[in-house]
Amino acid sequence: MAAAEGQWVLMATGRSPTNIAVIKYWGKRDEALILPVNDSISVTLDPDHLSATTTVAVSPSFPSDRMWLNGKEISLSGGRFQSCLREIRKRARDFEDEKKGINIKREDWEKLHVHIASYNNFPTAAGLASSAAGLACFVFTLGKIMNVKEDYGELSSIARQGSGSACRSIYGGFVKWCMGKKDDGSDSIAVQLADETHWNDLVIIIAVVSSKQKETSSTSGMRDSVETSPLLQYRAQTVVPSRVLKMEEAIKNHDFESFAKLTCADSNQFHAVCLDTSPPIFYMNDTSHRIISLVEKWNHSEGTPQVAYTFDAGPNAVLIAQNRKTAALLLRKLLYYFPPEDKDLSSYLVGDKSILGDAGLHSIKDVEALPAPPEMKIPDQKFMGDVSYFICIRLGAGPKVVADESQALIDAVTGLPKGL
Amino acid sequence: MAAAEGQWVLMATGRSPTNIAVIKYWGKRDEALILPVNDSISVTLDPDHLSATTTVAVSPSFPSDRMWLNGKEISLSGGRFQSCLREIRKRARDFEDEKKGINIKREDWEKLHVHIASYNNFPTAAGLASSAAGLACFVFTLGKIMNVKEDYGELSSIARQGSGSACRSIYGGFVKWCMGKKDDGSDSIAVQLADETHWNDLVIIIAVVSSKQKETSSTSGMRDSVETSPLLQYRAQTVVPSRVLKMEEAIKNHDFESFAKLTCADSNQFHAVCLDTSPPIFYMNDTSHRIISLVEKWNHSEGTPQVAYTFDAGPNAVLIAQNRKTAALLLRKLLYYFPPEDKDLSSYLVGDKSILGDAGLHSIKDVEALPAPPEMKIPDQKFMGDVSYFICIRLGAGPKVVADESQALIDAVTGLPKGL
Repeated sequence: MAAAEGQWVLMATGRSPTNIAVIKYWGKRDEALILPVNDSISVTLDPDHLSATTTVAVSPSFPSDRMWLNGKEISLSGGRFQSCLREIRKRARDFEDEKKGINIKREDWEKLHVHIASYNNFPTAAGLASSAAGLACFVFTLGKIMNVKEDYGELSSIARQGSGSACRSIYGGFVKWCMGKKDDGSDSIAVQLADETHWNDLVIIIAVVSSKQKETSSTSGMRDSVETSPLLQYRAQTVVPSRVLKMEEAIKNHDFESFAKLTCADSNQFHAVCLDTSPPIFYMNDTSHRIISLVEKWNHSEGTPQVAYTFDAGPNAVLIAQNRKTAALLLRKLLYYFPPEDKDLSSYLVGDKSILGDAGLHSIKDVEALPAPPEMKIPDQKFMGDVSYFICIRLGAGPKVVADESQALIDAVTGLPKGL
Repeated sequence: MAAAEGQWVLMATGRSPTNIAVIKYWGKRDEALILPVNDSISVTLDPDHLSATTTVAVSPSFPSDRMWLNGKEISLSGGRFQSCLREIRKRARDFEDEKKGINIKREDWEKLHVHIASYNNFPTAAGLASSAAGLACFVFTLGKIMNVKEDYGELSSIARQGSGSACRSIYGGFVKWCMGKKDDGSDSIAVQLADETHWNDLVIIIAVVSSKQKETSSTSGMRDSVETSPLLQYRAQTVVPSRVLKMEEAIKNHDFESFAKLTCADSNQFHAVCLDTSPPIFYMNDTSHRIISLVEKWNHSEGTPQVAYTFDAGPNAVLIAQNRKTAALLLRKLLYYFPPEDKDLSSYLVGDKSILGDAGLHSIKDVEALPAPPEMKIPDQKFMGDVSYFICIRLGAGPKVVADESQALIDAVTGLPKGL
């Protein structure tokens, strides 16, 4: 090894977005390789508001691979991390930094250990696909530091082995995960359908729903569904393929009506398959149902969809509005039924807070003065406390290198997470 | 017409049970004739606690057909009542009561008008298949007074045209509604699989769940499902036929394990199809989910099902326990999580109240002292107020004539409901 003194620490930092599926992934045909039973399609969310940041450090002085998530050390021994590490190391190339006197040969990477620090800029437990952003970032940043030259398709296939939906976080905009046919999974990769500028009117509002229930993890939930739901295979083989084609068309043509109908129907069908599982899995709760009802009644009263909804493996509602004006109207309806418990609006709506101004909501007084949505026949019942907070967000780009070294999560001298 | 004076009033009173499907009926292939997309199987509930009582009066002095439900006049002009009236009148026969001087010829029935009074001994709005009991009783009692001699299969086919599931209330015990093949619906009839004495260990506890939501009627809900759910036809054509065969076997063999697994899976799949409908239909709420979770965890911890659950078009849980001992244990678990809001136990558990003694619950103090079910990992959270009341009930017999004339709902002199 050229850098023999063992004093250097080489670092790279990356940031990866999370994504929300509009055609859902639910069920694996291969548990180890994480090969799905159907294609899925997602939108990538703006990493400024929801993303994982990961710093990978390499040094001959590290005696073992270690990892910290949100400042807390976690085990890297799980099969999923190990798969990603192994696959990236396999593809590692010669690296040289003359200035720092670092020269790493392809075969050296097998012997060099890594320290990895990762941080989510949103609550991990909120059920907002933190593992998708995290594993995509893990693979992307490892690939950068190890000078991997493979294309993003191959990177997505590696990220897939960390967490299925992570493969879709390798791109921005609209992304399709092609299930592939091969037993080795090499063709189960993500492709970008369109980048985030293609349809940039869309505005997303996420309702983070309070939940007392312990939720079934998506890993064990989808395993149970594959084993016990009589409807899952029919969905995967017969329903999803035509929906994927229609969704691709809808995205290409900015056809919001089709996009919304497909998104809502597919979210509902995914939760139907969960309910058809034994024992049944309930991810949505009464609050989720109320939000669906609010959107369905509004869409119905307008005669054409204004907003699409989709729910992942938890009660949070992801609401996709056709444009900023619709998003502002949606926010008014949501805040009418789900006003904040404390009076601080700015901590109740995070992300792109400027939507509050568009909605004419400058203070809690404006929220209290909101009229009941006329399309809702339910009388004046409100559900304060049932939503923890809202996030307003746009579509966003794929993973990026964070060039500013001051943003690295690892200290270049100690090789340990900053602040430890 | 022999009874020319027009002074007589001829009356008959019948009582019919309600029923709960264990293999669900959801979806019609013919809306007018009420022909289903799949077979279904139900258990008939003890009419002492849940039933409809109907008195039909006939008199030449009645100028028109009229009906009262629970003391309130309702319109008989709906297609469903009219179908039943027409089909029974078609089959009416000569009737003679020498003592009263009544002699009605077959062809006279077309000209004689009826007064019908019906009463449910449980809340109509509670979502406990009141229409099944009501329409079965309507057809049964009309058939009695009009001296109809057709067998119960044909009566069930007429009741079916009043309310689909009413055809299953023509028999006690275990009943199968055969979907039939003919376009005219004449082979879409109910048959009895076994009477109520065949498997008389079963004890049913119904949790009547409080709900603020306005529910989708089953008529419009199943129409929407047929039109929009991609999963419904697959369920009807592929999943249900094998379940029906297995359920018949389970009933024949008193095989509670199979009975429970099929019952729970089919309830969940029916609700999955509701969720797969556009817009989605939610009949179960968070309380329903909690009751399912309680049963699933208990069944899992015992290694074999102790209790089956099934939910119709509403949030109420129908829990079928293997025997009285299991039902008493179930009641203790239910009352731990869902204690009564007021201190009166005897109005919180209706029907067969003796189960309270079996469960060792003699007063509210005993309920307050209940230990947390050990199989539930959730800490000490309780949900007072989420269940309105419980009903304990057994399987029961089919429709019966009420011979005691004092129990008639119509005054023999005025021809109008008593107490009007």
